[in-house]
Amino acid sequence: MLSNDPIILFHSPQSRSAATRTLLEELGAPYRLRILNMKMGEQRQAPYLAINPLGKVPAIHHRGALVTEQVAIFLYLADLFPEMGLTPALNDPRRGPYLRWMVYYAACYEPALVDRAMKREQAPLAMSPYGAFDTMHDAITGQLSKSAYFLGEDITAVDILWGLALKWGAMFGILPANAIVADYVKRVTARPAFAKVEAMDAELALGHEAEKARAAAAAQEVAQR
Amino acid sequence: MLSNDPIILFHSPQSRSAATRTLLEELGAPYRLRILNMKMGEQRQAPYLAINPLGKVPAIHHRGALVTEQVAIFLYLADLFPEMGLTPALNDPRRGPYLRWMVYYAACYEPALVDRAMKREQAPLAMSPYGAFDTMHDAITGQLSKSAYFLGEDITAVDILWGLALKWGAMFGILPANAIVADYVKRVTARPAFAKVEAMDAELALGHEAEKARAAAAAQEVAQR
Repeated sequence: MLSNDPIILFHSPQSRSAATRTLLEELGAPYRLRILNMKMGEQRQAPYLAINPLGKVPAIHHRGALVTEQVAIFLYLADLFPEMGLTPALNDPRRGPYLRWMVYYAACYEPALVDRAMKREQAPLAMSPYGAFDTMHDAITGQLSKSAYFLGEDITAVDILWGLALKWGAMFGILPANAIVADYVKRVTARPAFAKVEAMDAELALGHEAEKARAAAAAQEVAQR
Repeated sequence: MLSNDPIILFHSPQSRSAATRTLLEELGAPYRLRILNMKMGEQRQAPYLAINPLGKVPAIHHRGALVTEQVAIFLYLADLFPEMGLTPALNDPRRGPYLRWMVYYAACYEPALVDRAMKREQAPLAMSPYGAFDTMHDAITGQLSKSAYFLGEDITAVDILWGLALKWGAMFGILPANAIVADYVKRVTARPAFAKVEAMDAELALGHEAEKARAAAAAQEVAQR
C-alpha cells in the first residue's frame, strides 16, 4: 500500500462526502474526520473556504496535499490501496472504462440532474456536456444491463460512487423508476460499509441539529435581554 | 511505456477532441484518426452513437476498450506514457492535485461555462457543482498566480487540457478578461504541438466544408430534376 499516513476527510453527514467516507471504510483506510456542520453553514465560512473555495465537501488532505472534487478523491484513494482490489491497475484493460465511468459521474450525471431538478431546459446538443437527459440515463442502464457492476462481475470503486449517487437520484425523485438501476443500487448498498456510514452519519446529523437548536435558543435569549 | 498498440481517436476538427489530439502529439503517441464531419452531423448518426451514445467527441479505442469523456481520456493517455513526464506517478505528491484539477474541468468549469453561455442562473449553492461563477473562476486564477503551471514549474497533462479550454473560453467571450489567464494560455499554447494540431485541424475543417457544399449541391440537383 502506498500510504500509512492518516487521511483527513472534510465531511458533513448525509452530504456528497458520505460516498467518500463509504469508500474509506471499504478500503479499510486509516482516516480522521474534520466535521462541518452544514446546518450551521460552516462549509461557507472562512476556515473551510481556505480548504475548498467552492464550499463543497468532500475534500481530503493527505501527505501535505489537498484534493477536492469527489471523482478526483475517489481516483486518488482507490489507487492508494491497490491490494483492496477496488481499482484496476494502470495496465489493466478495465482501466480506461474505469476512468470513463468515474468521470461520467461528474461530467454528465451531475449536470443532467441539476438541470432536471431545476426543471430547466438542457443546453443545445452541441454545447450540452451530457447530450439529452434520457440519453445520459440510457447509457447508464445500458451498461448496468450487461453485468452486475459497471466493469463486469467484480465490484470496483466506481460502484461505490454510483451506488449512492443512483440511490439518492431515485430517492429525490429525479431519476425515472428503473428496475435495472434499482437492483444495482440494492446490490451495491447492501454492503456493510454503506449501513455503517449511514448509521454514523445519522448520529452526526442529530448532533448537528441539536447544535443548531442550541445556537438558535442562545440567539433568542440574547435578543430578549 | 505501457502501450505499443495504436490508439484510435474519434475526432472532429476544431472541437473538444482537438485537446486530446494535442495531448497525443505531446506524448509522441502512435495514433490513428477516425474523423467525424460534424458539419454533416456524423456524430449523431448510428455508427458513432454505437461508440458514444452521447454523440460527443473525443472517444478513443485502445487495447479492446473504449474510453469516452475528455478527462477520462486525458488521465488514461497520460498514464500510458509516464516517460514523457506529463503525469505525476501514483506515489508522486502532486498526484492528488493533478486529479483535482483534471476533474475540476469536467465537474466545475464546463457546467459554469454552459450556464454563463446560456445566460441562465446557476443552481442554488447547495446543489451547484461549482458554487458561483466567480468563485469557480477565482479558484483557477488563484492557482495560476502561484506558479507557471497548475502543479508548479513543470508542465503536466493538466495544462494541455486547460491551455486550450481557457483559450476557447476567452475567445468565445465567456470568461472575463484576466491577465494571469491570458499569460498562462500564451505560455501553454506556444508549444509546437498546439500549432501543429491547429494547422492539421484547419485543413480537415476545409475538407469538411467542401464535403458539405458538395452534398448540398447534389441535393439541389436531385430536387430540380
